[in-house]
Amino acid sequence: MIDVCLLGTGGTMPLKSRWLSSALVRHNGKCVLFDCGEGTQIALKCANFTFKPIDVICLTHFHADHVSGLPGMLLSMGNEGREQPVLIIGPRGTRKVVSSLCTIAPGLTFDIEIAELINPDETFYFNGFTITAFKVNHAVSCYGYRLDVPRAGKFDVEKAKANNVPMALWSRLQKEETAEYEGKTYTSDMVLGEKRKGIRFVYSTDTRPTESLYENCMGANLAILEGMYGADEKESHAKIKMHMTFAEAADIASKANAQELWLTHYSPSMPNPQDYISEAQSIFPQTQLGFDGKTKTIYFPE
Amino acid sequence: MIDVCLLGTGGTMPLKSRWLSSALVRHNGKCVLFDCGEGTQIALKCANFTFKPIDVICLTHFHADHVSGLPGMLLSMGNEGREQPVLIIGPRGTRKVVSSLCTIAPGLTFDIEIAELINPDETFYFNGFTITAFKVNHAVSCYGYRLDVPRAGKFDVEKAKANNVPMALWSRLQKEETAEYEGKTYTSDMVLGEKRKGIRFVYSTDTRPTESLYENCMGANLAILEGMYGADEKESHAKIKMHMTFAEAADIASKANAQELWLTHYSPSMPNPQDYISEAQSIFPQTQLGFDGKTKTIYFPE
Repeated sequence: MIDVCLLGTGGTMPLKSRWLSSALVRHNGKCVLFDCGEGTQIALKCANFTFKPIDVICLTHFHADHVSGLPGMLLSMGNEGREQPVLIIGPRGTRKVVSSLCTIAPGLTFDIEIAELINPDETFYFNGFTITAFKVNHAVSCYGYRLDVPRAGKFDVEKAKANNVPMALWSRLQKEETAEYEGKTYTSDMVLGEKRKGIRFVYSTDTRPTESLYENCMGANLAILEGMYGADEKESHAKIKMHMTFAEAADIASKANAQELWLTHYSPSMPNPQDYISEAQSIFPQTQLGFDGKTKTIYFPE
Repeated sequence: MIDVCLLGTGGTMPLKSRWLSSALVRHNGKCVLFDCGEGTQIALKCANFTFKPIDVICLTHFHADHVSGLPGMLLSMGNEGREQPVLIIGPRGTRKVVSSLCTIAPGLTFDIEIAELINPDETFYFNGFTITAFKVNHAVSCYGYRLDVPRAGKFDVEKAKANNVPMALWSRLQKEETAEYEGKTYTSDMVLGEKRKGIRFVYSTDTRPTESLYENCMGANLAILEGMYGADEKESHAKIKMHMTFAEAADIASKANAQELWLTHYSPSMPNPQDYISEAQSIFPQTQLGFDGKTKTIYFPE
């Protein structure tokens, strides 16, 4: 299972009741933060999360509304006693941006590791999940992120017996480990059935609709996508500014057979996103308005 | 007159209901911002100020809680259409810090002028007021700021007549201008009485009590000083961390004959500053707790 918390839903500038677009995913005690605009550390506190377990920070791009909260966040992580390194993933230039912002965050108690994205698609492997960065289409280099929690096949007693796997190894092989016994190697595929559907989560803002966005949203349990503008007549403006409308985000989620879509990154010129939700739902009924602090726990399907 | 707005009262990290320590002073349509931590732009919006008229930004020092809101603030000033240059005053290193932070605020529509403080005292002259930066005592180089609005003497008809000042020049000389008439130079001291008491405002956080702080608070109409810790028993901790307690701030204000003291820059470990106010008031009765959005208009004395 994963816990998702949409920390903020604002684009461009934070409002009194709308933090900048950012989301947190927690899985097995590890936390991944997507974007970190000004005020994200307050949003995180409001949502009752702590700073210390943030192991990975994924930056979509370097516009200030997605990254200016980084120095304060890193300092607060240090104040909570973090000592383990933090991995920051972002477009080419991440090292320079992080190093510049850290001018005002000296003396951190932990190391920062940087992964600069070079290819249109890059996957990072963690204990129990993967994060795939995929290039989208904005005014500057920008990436969306897909987080997958794979799920092994069911334990198949008949298969284990047919493969003569000693019973003492069953539990290790069930955890997808490999085991040696009396000079022979046993692998998990000797005891497990077909891999089952896992959990897929997508976070992407600041882009026009792209083939990459559609492909990465395929079958997602939850996609958090930007809906910078609600009104359809804003589409031409969205094209100029390289953003998406509610309808465009809903269209992506629908075509990708996603299970649920949360809209985010609302323009400060749109005080009432609810005015435009019904049209998006006519395209993709599982469209929901994101709001600051909106949470969901996603389980493996039964 | 000047309008003062204490935008935030938090030290170290912003809380849900406590923005980071920052204050705005408005005089004759010009605005001066003191410090700009994460979230200051939201605090400014909440207090119904706009970004565009901010002409001067005074930074006390470069700890993130005093400066991390700068890129977002500058972008928002640009979004409101500012074209006039902005002066940023701060300790040695301001140029590097501002330039580093502006990595995520490219393409601003206005120029940034930097004044790096080198001397223990430096005064900047603006139309109708002065700002004096004075060195205080923190773990890093840190300055307090004093803003003075001087007030000319009263127009003295008898003096003007005694000095044979042509009546046609009276109004210009009253505005402290100099005038030429029939080959002769006339100055404002030929028509004005003794200079009168003006308005003095002081903003200082992150320091131990210093002689400079005491001197610059002398006779201030309002001093906004840090009260990082409320309890007296925190004094030894304050000494180590190079901050002030409520009592120490009240003592400075009392000795300097200030008219009013607002406490600010509360430690996040102190959720209820009101628990400690009475003791500070026993030292200096005009001590008030600062709170986010607290405002005051200060007029010339009658």
